[in-house]
Amino acid sequence: MRRFATIAAKISERKQMNPQIDYQSLADRYQTPLYVYDFDAMKSRYNTFKNAFDGRKSLICFAIKANSNLSVIAAFAAQGAGADCVSFGEVKRALLAGVPKYKIIFSGMGKRDDEIRGALAEDILLLNVESEEELERVEAIAAETGKIARISVRINPAIDAKTHPYISTGLKENKFGVDIETAKKLYLRAKKSANLEAIGIHFHIGSQLTELSAIAEAAEKVAELARNLIALEIDLKFFNVGGGLGIAYKDETPIAPADYALAIFMAVKGLDLTIVCEPGRFLTAEAGVFLTRVIYEKKAGKKRFVVVDGAMNDLIRPALYGAFHKVAVIGAEDHSGENLCDVVGPVCESSDFFAKNIHLPDVRRGDLLAIYAAGAYGFAMSSNYNTRRRAAEVAVEEGKDRLIRERESYEELFANELSLLKN
Amino acid sequence: MRRFATIAAKISERKQMNPQIDYQSLADRYQTPLYVYDFDAMKSRYNTFKNAFDGRKSLICFAIKANSNLSVIAAFAAQGAGADCVSFGEVKRALLAGVPKYKIIFSGMGKRDDEIRGALAEDILLLNVESEEELERVEAIAAETGKIARISVRINPAIDAKTHPYISTGLKENKFGVDIETAKKLYLRAKKSANLEAIGIHFHIGSQLTELSAIAEAAEKVAELARNLIALEIDLKFFNVGGGLGIAYKDETPIAPADYALAIFMAVKGLDLTIVCEPGRFLTAEAGVFLTRVIYEKKAGKKRFVVVDGAMNDLIRPALYGAFHKVAVIGAEDHSGENLCDVVGPVCESSDFFAKNIHLPDVRRGDLLAIYAAGAYGFAMSSNYNTRRRAAEVAVEEGKDRLIRERESYEELFANELSLLKN
Repeated sequence: MRRFATIAAKISERKQMNPQIDYQSLADRYQTPLYVYDFDAMKSRYNTFKNAFDGRKSLICFAIKANSNLSVIAAFAAQGAGADCVSFGEVKRALLAGVPKYKIIFSGMGKRDDEIRGALAEDILLLNVESEEELERVEAIAAETGKIARISVRINPAIDAKTHPYISTGLKENKFGVDIETAKKLYLRAKKSANLEAIGIHFHIGSQLTELSAIAEAAEKVAELARNLIALEIDLKFFNVGGGLGIAYKDETPIAPADYALAIFMAVKGLDLTIVCEPGRFLTAEAGVFLTRVIYEKKAGKKRFVVVDGAMNDLIRPALYGAFHKVAVIGAEDHSGENLCDVVGPVCESSDFFAKNIHLPDVRRGDLLAIYAAGAYGFAMSSNYNTRRRAAEVAVEEGKDRLIRERESYEELFANELSLLKN
Repeated sequence: MRRFATIAAKISERKQMNPQIDYQSLADRYQTPLYVYDFDAMKSRYNTFKNAFDGRKSLICFAIKANSNLSVIAAFAAQGAGADCVSFGEVKRALLAGVPKYKIIFSGMGKRDDEIRGALAEDILLLNVESEEELERVEAIAAETGKIARISVRINPAIDAKTHPYISTGLKENKFGVDIETAKKLYLRAKKSANLEAIGIHFHIGSQLTELSAIAEAAEKVAELARNLIALEIDLKFFNVGGGLGIAYKDETPIAPADYALAIFMAVKGLDLTIVCEPGRFLTAEAGVFLTRVIYEKKAGKKRFVVVDGAMNDLIRPALYGAFHKVAVIGAEDHSGENLCDVVGPVCESSDFFAKNIHLPDVRRGDLLAIYAAGAYGFAMSSNYNTRRRAAEVAVEEGKDRLIRERESYEELFANELSLLKN
């Protein structure tokens, strides 16, 4: 098995962040906590990625779960991107945002019947199936509704992606996909079925990957299977390498798109298949900043806490994955008096933190903090815990900013309960 | 320092769960995923708790963060409960649900100015302040608006509550409260202020506590401070012992309310103060069940996955805290063929699980699973991750069931974005 050395082509977040964005004025205008997305940076990321696959047919499907805002999806759609969806709700988002149905993929290892029915009715590109049981359901529902379901099968290549266990998905012990032997069986079954058309093959070994060798190894395994399937006259059209490219939250060295593409190209040599990629975090994380204001600074013994108006309900990655996010005080040039602190939110749990033991200059009430690389799995995972209204979202594009999601009102929070309250 | 032996008075969840509730028919009627709350069990828990404090003036303030549904709050209010709120949104909930304003406490270590202003305008019982900086803000805002702010101060007694680090809040290193010396300073400052009236003293050392000795130790420390403050002519009226009583998720032995009350009584001997308690989990956790249907069973090598239609977005405790929740198949009498499995949801992360390596009988598509002790920090922490609509909530009371929160529609999910989408 060939292994690729990861080429150190660090795409720094500072290069990605647009120094022209006036966070201070955005925070004044739209209030905090606030998500700000640099749409130019997102588009540039997309084009770098797409261009890396030049010379082969390719379809880049934005993984909506990373950042589900309709305007974000629409921005990628305008560049030519498709959509990777993991629920029928996401399929609806893709359609609303203007993604053509022939570029929409419905993945996910637990599709409900109504979701399968919905996806077939919308005639999207394909459903990515993750088990024999699911294939049976898709076939049965297609038969019931007189349709031919286009599918791909997700292969679990049993490879250690070397990422956080919560976002590693290609180990043998994971719930995702099927092993190579089972996959063969499913393709042969689909071939015989009047209601199934297997047009793709898929794998996805995890998220926030920084080891190209694991991806390359998986791609070669799955390409070998594709060759076997084609020899069995399975008419494959799409080779879907999933997503999962990591970014630089701290000091990680991300995989460069060109290296990534090269590894895939080598794996699929001789295969006349359209390459499908499903990047999410890679396209949006570094283009997003979470803005939050200091409520006050608190000293408790030797410990210094910077208490901000954002909280774990807004960005749960630090609490859930122990994730690192760079934090900076906007407009703080003077770093004298800088000392260690925890940046924490107002939620009544010790898990409510953005950063621990980081250096920040002295701050006062109202100072603005930026939490970087918050454009993926930020707002998308946010909740109303502690009856906090979720943040507003703003797009900055070609020097102009616009609201792309209004901050929730308390009335909206209570609506589905208030009418049902007996008094 | 006196220490109390924890008396083993296990209140089993089976005693709390009403065997009369027909989960099958509720799931048919309201669909899954679904939260079902046994209001009779909640009220009985409340009354057990309240009665334990018989013989002293007491106010039981339900900690809304555990389960924020307006009908749940209203049910406790009807029994005489007050409300412990950690955001102005929660204060609004308490008022909407009919909690009298003189029974509402606003806690939380990061109150924004607008929240302090709102709480003062509503003339609630008191604001619980957590730092010198916050005391200054409350005083300034009270002065601006010509009001006298009633306050209590949260004491951090620097005691190890021996619970999960994420929900431990009384260690010296925590962001919560102030130490005893600082507290004295704040009370003296409040005494001199024309806009502050310090009427309470408060502590809260953590959540899901099962060690009475830590609580007793904290209560004695804080009671000693209260005696000192009273000697300084601080006119205290409320001794607030916080919340945090644990429940039996697995094999924990919860603290019996009577033992708890006795420990508090001994600590406050000779003090003529109303005892305030802020139970949340204790009142609601075991009275709630999360219902979810099997999508399919999946075998991957030796591993067995039961894939259900509920997910981490509905109940994040297993992923976030590694929490254990008992899972059972509704209506499964025959446990033959029972073998180890993971119960997982459809979300595209390995963190999306409800239980790992548990014994469950064989299941089929459509079978109904109950996830127990889900009445606290369940729906309250839920999100729309993966564009999943949050679950509906149902109350069962005196043999009758009723919807208390409608399941979200896709339209509601998209509303704040769709109007802002440029096409």
